[in-house]
Amino acid sequence: MGGYAGQILYVDLSSGNIEKKPLDMEFARKHIGGLGFGTQIYLDLIKNDPVFDALSETNPFVLMTGPLTGMKMSGVARWTVCSKSPLTGFWGDSNVGGFFGAYLKFAGYDGIVITGKAQKPSYLFINDDTVEIRDAENYWGKDVYTVTDELKQDLKSESKKPGQVLTIGPAGENLVKFASLINNKGHAAGRTGMGAVWGSKMLKAVYVTGTGKIDIAHPDKMKDLRTELKEVYEESIGIAAIHAAGTATHMDVGILSGDIPIKNWQLSDWDQIDDIGPTEIEEKIFAGHKTCYGCGVACKKNAEVKDGPFKMEKGPGPEYETIATFGTMCLNPSIESIAKANDICNRYGMDTITCGSTIAFAMECFEKGLITEKDTDGLSLIWGNSEAIVQMTEKIAKQEGFGVVLGQGSLKAAEHIGANASDFLTTVKGLEAPMHDPRSAHGYGLAYAISPRGACHEASLTFEAEGGMIYIPEIPELSADLPDGSDERAQLNMVAQDYGMFFSNCAIFCNLGGMPLNATQALNMVNYATGFDYSLDEVMKIGRRVWYAKRGLTNLFGARAKDDTLPKRLMTVMEDGPTEGSVPDMDKMLAEFYELRGFNENGIPAKNILEDLDLQVLAELLNNI
Amino acid sequence: MGGYAGQILYVDLSSGNIEKKPLDMEFARKHIGGLGFGTQIYLDLIKNDPVFDALSETNPFVLMTGPLTGMKMSGVARWTVCSKSPLTGFWGDSNVGGFFGAYLKFAGYDGIVITGKAQKPSYLFINDDTVEIRDAENYWGKDVYTVTDELKQDLKSESKKPGQVLTIGPAGENLVKFASLINNKGHAAGRTGMGAVWGSKMLKAVYVTGTGKIDIAHPDKMKDLRTELKEVYEESIGIAAIHAAGTATHMDVGILSGDIPIKNWQLSDWDQIDDIGPTEIEEKIFAGHKTCYGCGVACKKNAEVKDGPFKMEKGPGPEYETIATFGTMCLNPSIESIAKANDICNRYGMDTITCGSTIAFAMECFEKGLITEKDTDGLSLIWGNSEAIVQMTEKIAKQEGFGVVLGQGSLKAAEHIGANASDFLTTVKGLEAPMHDPRSAHGYGLAYAISPRGACHEASLTFEAEGGMIYIPEIPELSADLPDGSDERAQLNMVAQDYGMFFSNCAIFCNLGGMPLNATQALNMVNYATGFDYSLDEVMKIGRRVWYAKRGLTNLFGARAKDDTLPKRLMTVMEDGPTEGSVPDMDKMLAEFYELRGFNENGIPAKNILEDLDLQVLAELLNNI
Repeated sequence: MGGYAGQILYVDLSSGNIEKKPLDMEFARKHIGGLGFGTQIYLDLIKNDPVFDALSETNPFVLMTGPLTGMKMSGVARWTVCSKSPLTGFWGDSNVGGFFGAYLKFAGYDGIVITGKAQKPSYLFINDDTVEIRDAENYWGKDVYTVTDELKQDLKSESKKPGQVLTIGPAGENLVKFASLINNKGHAAGRTGMGAVWGSKMLKAVYVTGTGKIDIAHPDKMKDLRTELKEVYEESIGIAAIHAAGTATHMDVGILSGDIPIKNWQLSDWDQIDDIGPTEIEEKIFAGHKTCYGCGVACKKNAEVKDGPFKMEKGPGPEYETIATFGTMCLNPSIESIAKANDICNRYGMDTITCGSTIAFAMECFEKGLITEKDTDGLSLIWGNSEAIVQMTEKIAKQEGFGVVLGQGSLKAAEHIGANASDFLTTVKGLEAPMHDPRSAHGYGLAYAISPRGACHEASLTFEAEGGMIYIPEIPELSADLPDGSDERAQLNMVAQDYGMFFSNCAIFCNLGGMPLNATQALNMVNYATGFDYSLDEVMKIGRRVWYAKRGLTNLFGARAKDDTLPKRLMTVMEDGPTEGSVPDMDKMLAEFYELRGFNENGIPAKNILEDLDLQVLAELLNNI
Repeated sequence: MGGYAGQILYVDLSSGNIEKKPLDMEFARKHIGGLGFGTQIYLDLIKNDPVFDALSETNPFVLMTGPLTGMKMSGVARWTVCSKSPLTGFWGDSNVGGFFGAYLKFAGYDGIVITGKAQKPSYLFINDDTVEIRDAENYWGKDVYTVTDELKQDLKSESKKPGQVLTIGPAGENLVKFASLINNKGHAAGRTGMGAVWGSKMLKAVYVTGTGKIDIAHPDKMKDLRTELKEVYEESIGIAAIHAAGTATHMDVGILSGDIPIKNWQLSDWDQIDDIGPTEIEEKIFAGHKTCYGCGVACKKNAEVKDGPFKMEKGPGPEYETIATFGTMCLNPSIESIAKANDICNRYGMDTITCGSTIAFAMECFEKGLITEKDTDGLSLIWGNSEAIVQMTEKIAKQEGFGVVLGQGSLKAAEHIGANASDFLTTVKGLEAPMHDPRSAHGYGLAYAISPRGACHEASLTFEAEGGMIYIPEIPELSADLPDGSDERAQLNMVAQDYGMFFSNCAIFCNLGGMPLNATQALNMVNYATGFDYSLDEVMKIGRRVWYAKRGLTNLFGARAKDDTLPKRLMTVMEDGPTEGSVPDMDKMLAEFYELRGFNENGIPAKNILEDLDLQVLAELLNNI
């Protein structure tokens, strides 16, 4: 059982049936873990009938850990969730840290597969072998903080050890299309609206406590590796920086290369950026470090706002993406208001990237006169109006007034607003782009356009490789000095996808906490845990298989070549600043990438490629297109 | 060219390309017209890539007339539209009368196929051979009445004869999911949200004027038939009743059998029903008769409210379905407010059945405390609040406040409201049921459950046959004395679908204006027009093919056996009144129907049946399910 807990939990909310299936070790070797398991299980569940709404009971939800989750080492606390996305209608997944994955394995489960829909609000109680679907009437309607505290308190007497809670907030119940799942009040599976999937299933929370331990295949080798890595981590400048100031450190760095989107992606510099940078954060809101299970990096920072209009109790603070979406994107210079908006997103359970980006989009619609205070329930959505940003965040969470429009995400909001609102969109396949500008690094553009879940910098290691954050000498494409511009980016993306799927989707390493690892170290860690003795070629092929599985699933849900494109706004040339005149050559990169990946003109992978990767089912399903 | 204009117009709004294709007479003979043409053309357009959102530019829109449209005879002015429905996500179509179809044929076209999406608001100008996509900036945002008047005025000088306008209102532009298309201010293609499809394509209107004539194959025989039918129509009691009072006459009749839904389908009687019945209508709002092209039935009535809070200028008045949805369904005894709500729906372009039903649904949510005035922008949605009903109708049309929630239709609104709101739904496949209660006639229950577009009494002639409105001696199932209960209803539905598809979907007869016709007369009319000399067997088979095509398309868009079901509310036993204790035996009827139609357990028709009907493409596409 090297690294694995050994069972997968199947819960059907419609029938109330609960089944524990032993983890097949051949299956485990073939797919490693995480989305290696997740895509395969999901596909098996839907293959006979792949047409359904993301919020229907037909849509399965899969949560998986990896073989390293729960180990006391840095960068491996992570786990992953997947389902059809209510926000985009395409494939959705989200990768998250915290404590839930580790505790789930301690209870004896590598993952949970949830199907059907409960008749009434329910939660899942997992206490080692005891697994029950329980009534959640007492918790429904309550926010994430309250439910987390109450469930822990209410179930304390039944648990040998204190448990962990994974829950949706009112936003998930209200089917906000970008609702999140939140563990321990601040670890969010944020993107693509998995919280709305739970809401539609009337599933409020999962509580888990367990007393088991995770065996590893080669403990002595792992011990030596841990000693080796201790030094590696201590010497890493990147790790030192994010330990000190968290991901917010990127506010100081990203602005130099034009990486940070400003005013809804219209500017590459802003004279007030220091007001929301790491120094001001330290001074005004910092309230201690925070970490995931077993990780020494501790990239997360608590925040507290002691008084004023944005007063908030101490709790998880905003990370880089959040500071950018609610800050630079909205020309909002108040770090306290950003902390408050982040706090609302955590308490109500919403993705901060989509939420902040959608508000920035609405601000541009407001500026251009497409909406007025009559539409926005009297809120003046002028750039930089910190109060209005916070109030609109709350309206979205509560689904009040104009919050109903924005709660559909910016793409649907643009349809609603009409006129030329779609010109202000920053979405690919309906997902709002994260806070890294492809005009500063062209490979990101291809990564956004081609990512199965929509605009995303985490569906490969392109971002880390092109941004110079990782150096993988074993793989030439991930250690190359790239020329400026759009050359060699297709090849980079492809290799960074294959390796990234192994690294952060199957194994599951943290893209941040795992930055210092080269391929040998990462592979060794997996081999010592599992005893499977994978070669690098082998895990690259497994990664490739997962990538094609996700691509195929998103194709199955309707994505085509026309959806592999950057929005107009991201392709607009900047007239000054670090990215002046620089726009990714999407036609070139896409043509090269399509060729490399064997896509037809519709954006569908060739049948023989899918078959060679043992994805016959997908090959068959996609054959008619 | 017997009966046909001889060309089909293909307009691609993305490229601006316009093509006139000659109507192939073999194709015409095989499919007759209307949805016989429509389903075939639609299927051909999407078969290579059938996964897309209804509001995406990929979704084609097809408008077709039949071989009788434009003839100066009663009950044949109709035409039909189809597309994927934005309201339900399944197959959508709508059948409509008025003048547009006739004028389109005079211009030389049997139908219009619209693909792609315009870059800016556009309208289509058709003047005999001249066909142009024109800028609609001046008309976008304006209501149906204004656009109809202005387009006619603005284009007068270019037209040899005054033209007809088919347009969306602001609701279609705002993507209200049940937005309609409206010809001549009151003839609505209402159901399944075809107006939102136009809105998403930025297509505001089609203006058509033409100077051509329609040839018929056997004019002398047709003349004799017209003479024969004159007498038939004069002797018809049903026709006399609807000529006198319009479809509102059903308020007096339907209440006796428990056919009229009251208080969101909770009651079968109501002591205030006479306040909104034909006598009060005559007295309070009647403002003259109104007809469709060439039809002597003149079932439509104008209305006018001279003063008071519901003041409205003279215009098309509410028909039966509208009076019930905005009246009995909401316990609203004010016929003036119903006329006003109908007027708003006509001016803004919205389906009255879904709109009124959704408001009734919201009223029940309000009564049960699931929503409060805080949600409804201060409107008190108590039963019978006529002012609130009218105001909410306007909010939906304008997509203001809570109107955004209700503008998605009741199914999505129930998801939004949460709790047990779905218990109050009256939808099948997302479409709100029309105003005829299956507890009063069990065959309607099967008709609703199985209709390809969702709850619908017009996708077959079941309603007319079981309700005793038609008598077709040539077809035993449509002239039988049915036992009470659910026996023989599966057979009835099947035959009524096959004949109904020929009669009202292909030929295209009006279900109301064509009521007095037996099969021989209907068939003769088609044969004299086309010269095709069809047998009854032959048209039944063509009808069957269209029915399976629609079923297959709705399957292709995701409908399965689980979607062939009546909502809980319609299956609740009445404790008194005419329908006391009567609930359709859905399990029995569905099992019999599935057997008769050769469906598998997923609700998919057997491959060989589709192949026998020359629906190989569908058979192939559905084969994997």
